[in-house]
Amino acid sequence: MNFSSDNSYGAWPEIVTAIGAAAAGAVASYGGDALTAKVRARLCELFEREVAVFPVISGTAANALALATLVPPHGAVFCHGESHIAVDECGAPEFFTHGAKLVPLEGDGGKLVPETLERALSHFHKGFVHHVQPAAVSITQSTELGTVYKPGEIAPLAALARAHGMKMHMDGARFANALASLKCTPAQATWRAGVDAMSFGATKNGALGAEAVIFFDPAQARDFEYRRKKAGHLLSKMRFVSAQLDAYLDGTRWLERAGRANRLARKLAQGLEDIPGVQLAHPVEANAVFAVVPDATLARLRGHGAAFYDWAPPENGRTLVRLVTSFATPEADVERFVKIANGE
Amino acid sequence: MNFSSDNSYGAWPEIVTAIGAAAAGAVASYGGDALTAKVRARLCELFEREVAVFPVISGTAANALALATLVPPHGAVFCHGESHIAVDECGAPEFFTHGAKLVPLEGDGGKLVPETLERALSHFHKGFVHHVQPAAVSITQSTELGTVYKPGEIAPLAALARAHGMKMHMDGARFANALASLKCTPAQATWRAGVDAMSFGATKNGALGAEAVIFFDPAQARDFEYRRKKAGHLLSKMRFVSAQLDAYLDGTRWLERAGRANRLARKLAQGLEDIPGVQLAHPVEANAVFAVVPDATLARLRGHGAAFYDWAPPENGRTLVRLVTSFATPEADVERFVKIANGE
Amino acid sequence: MNFSSDNSYGAWPEIVTAIGAAAAGAVASYGGDALTAKVRARLCELFEREVAVFPVISGTAANALALATLVPPHGAVFCHGESHIAVDECGAPEFFTHGAKLVPLEGDGGKLVPETLERALSHFHKGFVHHVQPAAVSITQSTELGTVYKPGEIAPLAALARAHGMKMHMDGARFANALASLKCTPAQATWRAGVDAMSFGATKNGALGAEAVIFFDPAQARDFEYRRKKAGHLLSKMRFVSAQLDAYLDGTRWLERAGRANRLARKLAQGLEDIPGVQLAHPVEANAVFAVVPDATLARLRGHGAAFYDWAPPENGRTLVRLVTSFATPEADVERFVKIANGE
Amino acid sequence: MNFSSDNSYGAWPEIVTAIGAAAAGAVASYGGDALTAKVRARLCELFEREVAVFPVISGTAANALALATLVPPHGAVFCHGESHIAVDECGAPEFFTHGAKLVPLEGDGGKLVPETLERALSHFHKGFVHHVQPAAVSITQSTELGTVYKPGEIAPLAALARAHGMKMHMDGARFANALASLKCTPAQATWRAGVDAMSFGATKNGALGAEAVIFFDPAQARDFEYRRKKAGHLLSKMRFVSAQLDAYLDGTRWLERAGRANRLARKLAQGLEDIPGVQLAHPVEANAVFAVVPDATLARLRGHGAAFYDWAPPENGRTLVRLVTSFATPEADVERFVKIANGE
Repeated sequence: MNFSSDNSYGAWPEIVTAIGAAAAGAVASYGGDALTAKVRARLCELFEREVAVFPVISGTAANALALATLVPPHGAVFCHGESHIAVDECGAPEFFTHGAKLVPLEGDGGKLVPETLERALSHFHKGFVHHVQPAAVSITQSTELGTVYKPGEIAPLAALARAHGMKMHMDGARFANALASLKCTPAQATWRAGVDAMSFGATKNGALGAEAVIFFDPAQARDFEYRRKKAGHLLSKMRFVSAQLDAYLDGTRWLERAGRANRLARKLAQGLEDIPGVQLAHPVEANAVFAVVPDATLARLRGHGAAFYDWAPPENGRTLVRLVTSFATPEADVERFVKIANGE
Repeated sequence: MNFSSDNSYGAWPEIVTAIGAAAAGAVASYGGDALTAKVRARLCELFEREVAVFPVISGTAANALALATLVPPHGAVFCHGESHIAVDECGAPEFFTHGAKLVPLEGDGGKLVPETLERALSHFHKGFVHHVQPAAVSITQSTELGTVYKPGEIAPLAALARAHGMKMHMDGARFANALASLKCTPAQATWRAGVDAMSFGATKNGALGAEAVIFFDPAQARDFEYRRKKAGHLLSKMRFVSAQLDAYLDGTRWLERAGRANRLARKLAQGLEDIPGVQLAHPVEANAVFAVVPDATLARLRGHGAAFYDWAPPENGRTLVRLVTSFATPEADVERFVKIANGE
Repeated sequence: MNFSSDNSYGAWPEIVTAIGAAAAGAVASYGGDALTAKVRARLCELFEREVAVFPVISGTAANALALATLVPPHGAVFCHGESHIAVDECGAPEFFTHGAKLVPLEGDGGKLVPETLERALSHFHKGFVHHVQPAAVSITQSTELGTVYKPGEIAPLAALARAHGMKMHMDGARFANALASLKCTPAQATWRAGVDAMSFGATKNGALGAEAVIFFDPAQARDFEYRRKKAGHLLSKMRFVSAQLDAYLDGTRWLERAGRANRLARKLAQGLEDIPGVQLAHPVEANAVFAVVPDATLARLRGHGAAFYDWAPPENGRTLVRLVTSFATPEADVERFVKIANGE
Repeated sequence: MNFSSDNSYGAWPEIVTAIGAAAAGAVASYGGDALTAKVRARLCELFEREVAVFPVISGTAANALALATLVPPHGAVFCHGESHIAVDECGAPEFFTHGAKLVPLEGDGGKLVPETLERALSHFHKGFVHHVQPAAVSITQSTELGTVYKPGEIAPLAALARAHGMKMHMDGARFANALASLKCTPAQATWRAGVDAMSFGATKNGALGAEAVIFFDPAQARDFEYRRKKAGHLLSKMRFVSAQLDAYLDGTRWLERAGRANRLARKLAQGLEDIPGVQLAHPVEANAVFAVVPDATLARLRGHGAAFYDWAPPENGRTLVRLVTSFATPEADVERFVKIANGE
């Protein structure tokens, strides 16, 4: 019963097979191979436009490299206070951007809203050399709190960003889960809503370690290639990252498996919310459940081998916990977890 | 006939199998898994001592992270002028060290010698705040020019480094080829000769993308963990890098396959050196051949589909080229290459 | 009527004289001169202990260099959300620390309190590699909002910092104003209360550009010298910064002139608070007055040539403004300002 | 008898007077004052074109900030192996540029020539992501070895730089000495010969600490303002740097005093070259003399209180020393030095 994170689970068999198929023969290194070209073509088709694509092996690298490309060292990046870039990357964005500043904002369910962004912007004077200069807004899709931005929620943020000369970045480590939830096109969920660049994640949904940084306007990728190399993120045997992404993007499996994870999360949430003393903290729109659960219940669950994170210190005998489902979480684990929580 | 680089070749079947075996089930992320522990144990055994081990996915990352851990921002790193860190990493060491300086030195066959290092050191005044301060020596094993340091050549460099308060770093992207050539123990080739930290490469010899940064005194690893995370090089599904290294280090295959590449290089060299107008540029001690070849011959070879790098601009109708063999280079390719070069 | 900032005013005649006296003859460069040694001796005496002293020419440099010495790139610096390092240094601390993170906290009157710090610390897991690690607390004395920390307010913050393995930094750009207000010894206001390092400012109180970075435990200065040089802040003709500090620290003038600025601020505050519609926003404990003033009044004042900063956007016909007095602000300007504000 | 460096000497009385005159009253901070505007106007007139001007307080800051503005983090800066930026700035350019690489070149008398630059460039492949990319050439005027580039020597370097898409930077810490030697116009010695940006030094020729970074095409200054602030080099009381530069640039004093230093250097050189066993190492074209002098002679000179630098370790009983004259070096010191050297 491992609900710690979706990255606790392994990889799709199809991806392993693709790795094997890619293992033979000599090809051009550093992304000059046919598989890398094919992944690029797949993503252009998926997003219904010419895009620039750069495979990397971690979400932190994807986010930090993208932000460093979009933002000068004297820039400010507005993001949610609980976002991965703000909390869980050990300052990678600050390192890669050479000292830009992340400005943490509040927002229900891990989502930014234009009003909060606008209020924050009022503290930054454009051209005032003492202040870092507003340069990007970064949102997470699905969010760190298991919610999902609707295209109609992204568009006004992006419009506000644009009006202030800022770029719009999306951390899409769980983009598949968001899209499976939204049931709109990838284009609608991103550039049509005003997103300039994104980290398109595959790792959490079943790759070994494969993310694609995508610039919807290829010209904005500027010197990304050099930044990636300088950061040690340009792989000599790039074919093996591309093979993962190629298998990942083949057909609709990526959405179906993300959808499965989402369904299990809903099932888990429904099971939990009926239990006295348990309370859902956020709408369950993707593959994470945030619930306030009595500490005795949590102890019992852990006693039965359940793994999950406390999201906050205990308070009045209850603790906010995070439960994440994945493409490979056994459905029986969900059922068993609910039963134990129920005291059965 | 691809002799461009050993990284043009794919991966061992055993490594693909190991990836597949690691793909099932839920395990701890970020290196808390059993495979990562096993790799660490294997490397402790291999090197006959307690070592600190950090898997990463590229040689550039391995080198730059290790150097950044060993060297302060105001440090100087002495290295060969043709070394990978100096020439082929787009300034990654400067980025990761926050601005330390690489001091390029000359040396036959890509090797440093104590005299050159000593002369260079005489230009740096210890404690003189205007000068970057000597902080590390970095050598490559096998070297970028296809030669191999004997332990007896490393030891005096390391002693000189130590005498000046410097650390000794080894870029071991092709450590397997060096060791297969030396026929000494890994310990003799590294820490017993005075090496403090190394990049232990597996990628070029048949992994997908797997290198281990090793500190022979674990205390010297200091804040490596944070640097790796901050650089986006801590993988969530670390098991998949560790699975590669585990299969790589299983038995003596890694040395045998490197030995095979070395043998093919020698065979290639022997075939070429008998050809009129062709001249070997460096001793062939690992898996690379450097030869000066008439341009007409090179054109003929390329016309037959041979791939390799020019190492310098043409001069007097001949060009210095690099030919690299790998664990998977077909022996027939070597034979055919020589034949074509011979005008047969 | 310039109340924009204390740095709008010039320099003491005694400091100009000292510059002139230092201008003749040949002396050792880069701080090897007698004046620099004398300044160090003066500060050791002033602080009643052996301290390490590094003169620089700007407060931003002093703060950023000190923080970079105290904090690793993966460190977190807790500071007030309105502090100079957080808001007014264009990300200098992030640049000099190579990407450490400033964590902005709330606090009345620009002051941190232990409860807020403790709550913030609860979100950082020690040794958890994904989180930047708590490394320093930085307070400003006097604060950006014109208040002053009492030693008894600093000590519990410093104790909490120490308990979490953090260093305590003080931005003392207006330390003179704070001390003139506190009427305790410099030692009591700093290291006796737990401060590890400070920026000791002289510029705002009448130097041309002179601040001293002080480490109360000289061992903690570590590689400061190299950082200062690498940042272009080691002056060849250091004597001219030291001459300023020497004249500044001669006798008690520095406290008297800061005291004068404080007195004028109180006088200004008292004049304003009696005016209907005007409200002081913070206790006036140093040389800055924060007041909410009707916009019509502000327009009238500006019409008469008064200069000052709006501290927030207008709200309901009134605006929060900042008024700063200095060692050289004409007392008549204060009186005239109050009269005009009064509608006289 | 201090010949250590021109920065061992103090400041002009006219500059001290200007500081005093600037000390009164309230003016706009951070360069918004009239003196800073006047300095800009003076430099536009001096260089016969619209230029962007940024006063800073050290040569290292001027060079590093200018280079960081001209060069991306993945750029290469070609410079002489004995240049100040390569040897004497503790890696400041690497820090400010976020990890660009300085490529040290050889050249007689501290000067670069097109052939050497061209040969170096042949090792860098344009657009090859593994190599840092040629981005700037930096020359020093007058050079670190006391020679002076003629405009006709700069122009072909600049043309070659331009042809490779590089910018041309001049470290003009001793620009006054160069110009006094050249007897051409400032424009001829800089932008008319192809220089894009320069550090215009005043410190070594008699300011307290004042250099102006100049961009001959103001558009190339791009985000310099933010870089300067972020590095702690934007002074609140900028008027005091500008006052120095204003007095420095008033009339032709700056050239006359540099000319005097040059004349003393020639006098010193002429006195020394007649002494048996003494040999000039480089043409004496500015205010520095490099001479190989018997160690016994050097010991005698030091015994009489002479101060100067050894430029290399002793060799065969003689040592290469550097002797620098300044605007304020007593002529009698030169005469006395020669006499003692002569054994009189």
